Amino acid sequence: MKKYFLFAILISGVALLFAFAGNGPKARKVSPNDPDTLALKMIYSEALENGAAYENLRKLCKEIPPRLSGSRGAKMAVDYMYQVMNGMGLDSVWLQECMVPHWERGVAETGNMIIDEKITRMNICALGGSDPTPADGLEAEVIEVRDFDHLKELGEKKIKGKIVFYNYPFNETFVSCFHAYGDAVKYRWQGPHMAQTYGAVAVLVRSMTNARDTFPHTGVMRMDSLRATIPSAAISTVDAEILSAALKGKSPVRFSMTMNCHMYPDEKSHNVIGEIRGSVNPDKVIVFGGHLDAWDNGEGAHDDGAGCVQGIEVLRLFKALGIKPRYTIRCVLWMNEENGGKGAAAYFDYAKKKNVQHIAAIESDAGGFTPRGFGLDMKPAQRQKIQSWQPLFFPYGVYDFTQDGGGADIGPLKELGTPLLGLHPDSQRYFDHHHTENDKFEHVNRRELHLGAASIAGLVYMIDKYGL
Amino acid sequence: MKKYFLFAILISGVALLFAFAGNGPKARKVSPNDPDTLALKMIYSEALENGAAYENLRKLCKEIPPRLSGSRGAKMAVDYMYQVMNGMGLDSVWLQECMVPHWERGVAETGNMIIDEKITRMNICALGGSDPTPADGLEAEVIEVRDFDHLKELGEKKIKGKIVFYNYPFNETFVSCFHAYGDAVKYRWQGPHMAQTYGAVAVLVRSMTNARDTFPHTGVMRMDSLRATIPSAAISTVDAEILSAALKGKSPVRFSMTMNCHMYPDEKSHNVIGEIRGSVNPDKVIVFGGHLDAWDNGEGAHDDGAGCVQGIEVLRLFKALGIKPRYTIRCVLWMNEENGGKGAAAYFDYAKKKNVQHIAAIESDAGGFTPRGFGLDMKPAQRQKIQSWQPLFFPYGVYDFTQDGGGADIGPLKELGTPLLGLHPDSQRYFDHHHTENDKFEHVNRRELHLGAASIAGLVYMIDKYGL
Repeated sequence: MKKYFLFAILISGVALLFAFAGNGPKARKVSPNDPDTLALKMIYSEALENGAAYENLRKLCKEIPPRLSGSRGAKMAVDYMYQVMNGMGLDSVWLQECMVPHWERGVAETGNMIIDEKITRMNICALGGSDPTPADGLEAEVIEVRDFDHLKELGEKKIKGKIVFYNYPFNETFVSCFHAYGDAVKYRWQGPHMAQTYGAVAVLVRSMTNARDTFPHTGVMRMDSLRATIPSAAISTVDAEILSAALKGKSPVRFSMTMNCHMYPDEKSHNVIGEIRGSVNPDKVIVFGGHLDAWDNGEGAHDDGAGCVQGIEVLRLFKALGIKPRYTIRCVLWMNEENGGKGAAAYFDYAKKKNVQHIAAIESDAGGFTPRGFGLDMKPAQRQKIQSWQPLFFPYGVYDFTQDGGGADIGPLKELGTPLLGLHPDSQRYFDHHHTENDKFEHVNRRELHLGAASIAGLVYMIDKYGL
Repeated sequence: MKKYFLFAILISGVALLFAFAGNGPKARKVSPNDPDTLALKMIYSEALENGAAYENLRKLCKEIPPRLSGSRGAKMAVDYMYQVMNGMGLDSVWLQECMVPHWERGVAETGNMIIDEKITRMNICALGGSDPTPADGLEAEVIEVRDFDHLKELGEKKIKGKIVFYNYPFNETFVSCFHAYGDAVKYRWQGPHMAQTYGAVAVLVRSMTNARDTFPHTGVMRMDSLRATIPSAAISTVDAEILSAALKGKSPVRFSMTMNCHMYPDEKSHNVIGEIRGSVNPDKVIVFGGHLDAWDNGEGAHDDGAGCVQGIEVLRLFKALGIKPRYTIRCVLWMNEENGGKGAAAYFDYAKKKNVQHIAAIESDAGGFTPRGFGLDMKPAQRQKIQSWQPLFFPYGVYDFTQDGGGADIGPLKELGTPLLGLHPDSQRYFDHHHTENDKFEHVNRRELHLGAASIAGLVYMIDKYGL
């Protein structure tokens, strides 16, 4: 009897596990008077009613110039964020030094498609880290490349002396636009170098977006020993379609371009850090935040002003609600995520050297859109613990704890055994804005931004209370 | 033995039920080769890659004038949608007649806040169905009213001869913005009549939105025997704050307004209907769609052009993928949802008279935003059946089948025993656009719109296959 009973229990367990295969968590009891239910209600309500993240973001986007690493805007952003956190009555606000690359786009970026005598202007946008063209520009025939296999197939014979045009579109069937980005971004990242090895004189990359838009999306290219030294730029998806159609015609298609971008010596910069000291274990830290640098062609509202102001909002929520964390909770605004990761490296070096114990690290760098869940990169038992809290977050539209995730700035901490979490907002609109002039404050919704901040705060609250 | 085994199975079932208490469904098996998993993958991929809804919406919004019931634009929208469906190779496309109210805003809407000699212009927007002001306008002192209790407390003595200003804000702590709308909209709906009973000469209503914006949001007021006959208008939330602050000052605040809106005789109009006949049970119908009329001050892109083109897209997906439904699947574009519901009444009358059996009715009238789930209004067993499909939809971000729901146009069918479903997109941005000039095509994201259409199509597919 007992044997069968246990067997049935086992089946039951398997059924339960299986039942949640699609959406993860074991159930956590939720009732109106459950203290955690009440705490989360308090956190979300405070964020929705009195959230300060939106106004902080407005100032960052509208009162400070673009803030690519090494720029005047980046310095001003560091000062501004330091001031914001310094005015919040935190236990500690400090700057953490790092040396960052200083690349500037310059003022002259022009592109022209030339067929016979006919010239069609096209907006181009140098990839971050690209070399410039000669001062009087560069002109060559264009060759379209579908993917790296195609590049190899064409070989030096067909490519030498030409401008390689990578026209690899986002895969529309991927539901998460980040998956499409992950699939396509290699053509921006190492496409320039690969093309150069076959003798290309320049590279044009179809912008990394699902959108059919008319402005190019920039982004960094490979900056290590395999950095290309030929001019490399993005063109918009609409222009990519026009260029591709032209290449199917009879006349050869030439392209002329000028770029006077330039790499300057490294500059001193900083991560901005603010924290509330733990009441029980101040030496153990829950860290969260986003990156403060942003591409120079926009306001960096979604990428990643949103993550920065959400991190600060988590501290504000704890202060406003009088929640005293057991562990130290720390907001870090990392510098130089976009083109070097030097801020992340500096924070990692500090953590390693000082042997800082991190309970968890949470990054918000996927836009200020309506939150849907958190990606998790940690041990299975830790994962299950967080998944068991899913019913608490479900009423706020935060339901998905099944994905992997983390983030570029917290990534290095994995080596120290830190459990990593990444906020996953809805991804559908993200690449409409990413790395362009279209990434501006007006496209961030106040409530979506604040729901994201509250979600991080709620998770910090739970991790602080129950450990991980 | 058997007894204990059954007991354990029972426990297992209870555990399962409990496990899903937070998020609804019993688990449906999901595996990569499961036929339904494959069918949904096909449906979503086709919508994301080749969806036509976005382009249909562009034409509806950009090539056709505003389409409030009874207007020239509404007639053109009926013709356009008929043509679209007629060109799709459906089994039947037809128009269903209904008589609709014909109210026009007129050309002159002006508002001025007057304090001492100082005049501050404020945009006003007549509520749908309102009477006009006298031709030379109306001016009176303003009295702010917090809610109906406050109105009653002030009484005729304080209110008579004045303009009642309802300043009831959206409750920010409601996570769903539709709950906040449901809470506040009574001041637009019956506020005018209530104020008139106390002798008010006009009504200003704070716009129904979470947004802090500068344009008024219109919407219908009560149109039955309790319709107010005093001029009634909305003002923006920003102006509402300014007006409210002014009312805290020492000087009395007066307001002058002109509106020359007018109610004309009813007009003949139509629901537009297209269908694919069922291969097994053509007399039983799964109906879905949205409403074709929209407020006159915008393009009605989210409300509810989105629902219309999504309904048409469901038919396109079945055709494109060669899916032959067992039951007749029917898209209805209802006329006059905004200010009368005459299209819904006509469809109901037809269904009742002809004894049309509806397997289910699905409405999309909550915007073309990223879908999150479906609200259900049906018998518990039917509800559980749909909830058991949740794991199939989870990979597409459609996870919430726990809410109630339906819609204004399918609502009457409940009397005939029809199970009702309403698409629930994310609600955070909806009232940034609702009933304003800001409800335009540019604010609809192509992929979000198509994910919504695919979600409806997927549900129609499952209901058609398994019944309800």
